Amino acid sequence: MQTLADAGEHEVIGEIVAAAPSALNGDDAAVLFPAPPNSRTVASTDTMVEGRHFKREWSRPEEIGKKAITQNFADIEAMGARPVAALLAMSAPSDTPVAFVRGVAEGIAARCGDYTAELVGGDLTRSEEIVVTVTAIGALGGSMPALALTRARAGQSIVAHGRLGWSAAGLDLLRAFGRELPAGHERLGALIDQHCVPWLSPGRGVIARATGATAATDNSDGLVPDLGIFARRSGVRMDLNADAIAPDELLEEAGVLLGIDPWKWVLSGGEDHTLLVTTAKDAPSGFRPIGRVLKGEGVTLDGKPADYEEGWVSF
Amino acid sequence: MQTLADAGEHEVIGEIVAAAPSALNGDDAAVLFPAPPNSRTVASTDTMVEGRHFKREWSRPEEIGKKAITQNFADIEAMGARPVAALLAMSAPSDTPVAFVRGVAEGIAARCGDYTAELVGGDLTRSEEIVVTVTAIGALGGSMPALALTRARAGQSIVAHGRLGWSAAGLDLLRAFGRELPAGHERLGALIDQHCVPWLSPGRGVIARATGATAATDNSDGLVPDLGIFARRSGVRMDLNADAIAPDELLEEAGVLLGIDPWKWVLSGGEDHTLLVTTAKDAPSGFRPIGRVLKGEGVTLDGKPADYEEGWVSF
Repeated sequence: MQTLADAGEHEVIGEIVAAAPSALNGDDAAVLFPAPPNSRTVASTDTMVEGRHFKREWSRPEEIGKKAITQNFADIEAMGARPVAALLAMSAPSDTPVAFVRGVAEGIAARCGDYTAELVGGDLTRSEEIVVTVTAIGALGGSMPALALTRARAGQSIVAHGRLGWSAAGLDLLRAFGRELPAGHERLGALIDQHCVPWLSPGRGVIARATGATAATDNSDGLVPDLGIFARRSGVRMDLNADAIAPDELLEEAGVLLGIDPWKWVLSGGEDHTLLVTTAKDAPSGFRPIGRVLKGEGVTLDGKPADYEEGWVSF
Repeated sequence: MQTLADAGEHEVIGEIVAAAPSALNGDDAAVLFPAPPNSRTVASTDTMVEGRHFKREWSRPEEIGKKAITQNFADIEAMGARPVAALLAMSAPSDTPVAFVRGVAEGIAARCGDYTAELVGGDLTRSEEIVVTVTAIGALGGSMPALALTRARAGQSIVAHGRLGWSAAGLDLLRAFGRELPAGHERLGALIDQHCVPWLSPGRGVIARATGATAATDNSDGLVPDLGIFARRSGVRMDLNADAIAPDELLEEAGVLLGIDPWKWVLSGGEDHTLLVTTAKDAPSGFRPIGRVLKGEGVTLDGKPADYEEGWVSF
């Protein structure tokens, strides 16, 4: 199997560019397409470290690439902006197979394609462990404000686009069984897929902003922790409707199988990158109501303190 | 000494934001200031890995932060664009001192300030080794093309802004002596400083483009290797003027001290991030002529093949 050391930097970069081609790539920096007048550029960056954010025995390289894009583009969408470009900074040991890097680039290209975005640049360096950093760039059209963490207002409803708890349940299934689910439980593979390749319909953030939403974030660290930050930044209370977010059949089945209360996944499980938006209007297309913004502080579930508050902890 | 594990992610991020404050930071993604009509966004990313691109016994944290910005902003300037923002993705072990991260952020803030740019976002993750990835975002004003690797033309002169060979000489001095130079050679500290904190005057890329230059790159991997790529991409020969790039007194002194031909540093030493620009006009302010663009291919020195062609190799 050809490694990065065998191929050398330039050939590996050639493989990445072949897998994720863009006419904007190949110079010292990428010059993006002109944006319409009044547009503002939006940028965010997120890192995935092997062993901590992904494992090669659980995720195919294409899945790692897709997840890197989804989680970064979710941050762009959470501003109400449209993702237009990504940059890939990848560090890896010399003995990493070239096929791994190519696979990550293929996943990046596929998911960028879902958003009509392109991989426009990057950097490839040697390191002791695999570190994948994607920077996402988006365009925020028009003069309306972005969807900000500070602009949730009492009286609005909280609406969500995406899964809640599936990624965390998928991770617990991987820890227990790897990719080989027990006989009769094959359909729980959907939870594992959501962990390895979280999915959002592209454009929901733009739609939310265009239809009157004012504030948003994405569920990266856990529903209650992320809403906790959201509520504090806006100076409001966020009250979740238990019926609206109750564990579905798959989460219930996984909970019985693993002996875990599935509410834990719903309330504290991150990495679904579900868009969490507040609006005084009807739920935008693709969103469902999950709660209300109220005066006060903190996050509650049907008016009572929400359990399972601890989400993702980095250190 | 307080470590990242002691402080926790949120407190460390608080330290970074305090050291490099920006009103644009703190949401899921940063919304940049509106750019003038006709502006295009320019983006580039570069990674520094501990032990490979820096050593903590040689570089203070502030210097690592400054270097990360300089090398990224050089890529933006090499398009003729103005750096406006940076994002920092930092991975580090749990036992890394918080003071190290704060120092890197202080260096980033100081160097961003030199360019009137801001650190607008980032990500902090745990890893086995320290990996610092900066993404630079720039604004390319007006409708003229960017300075592209493909647009050098026979008949132009090659002009440079910045040092040539100093960073590589500084690295060899560090390898031989660390930061403690032999008595009587203290002034060679300027070479070490250039390695640890390469310096460019901000805005030279914009000035070059505004005064008629058509093509540019920066010296990151070595003068001859970088010009070799430049020449190939433009389909031209680049002929260097030996008198114009001859080793200066400091390089000569370091060469005698280390028993190294200083031409090696000038021709193959990278990481000075010197702007290398081609123009049919007079050298723009801050630039000096170092050679000519000719018909043909490759890189020559006074018409003969340039020695020391091997530059930085990643794998």
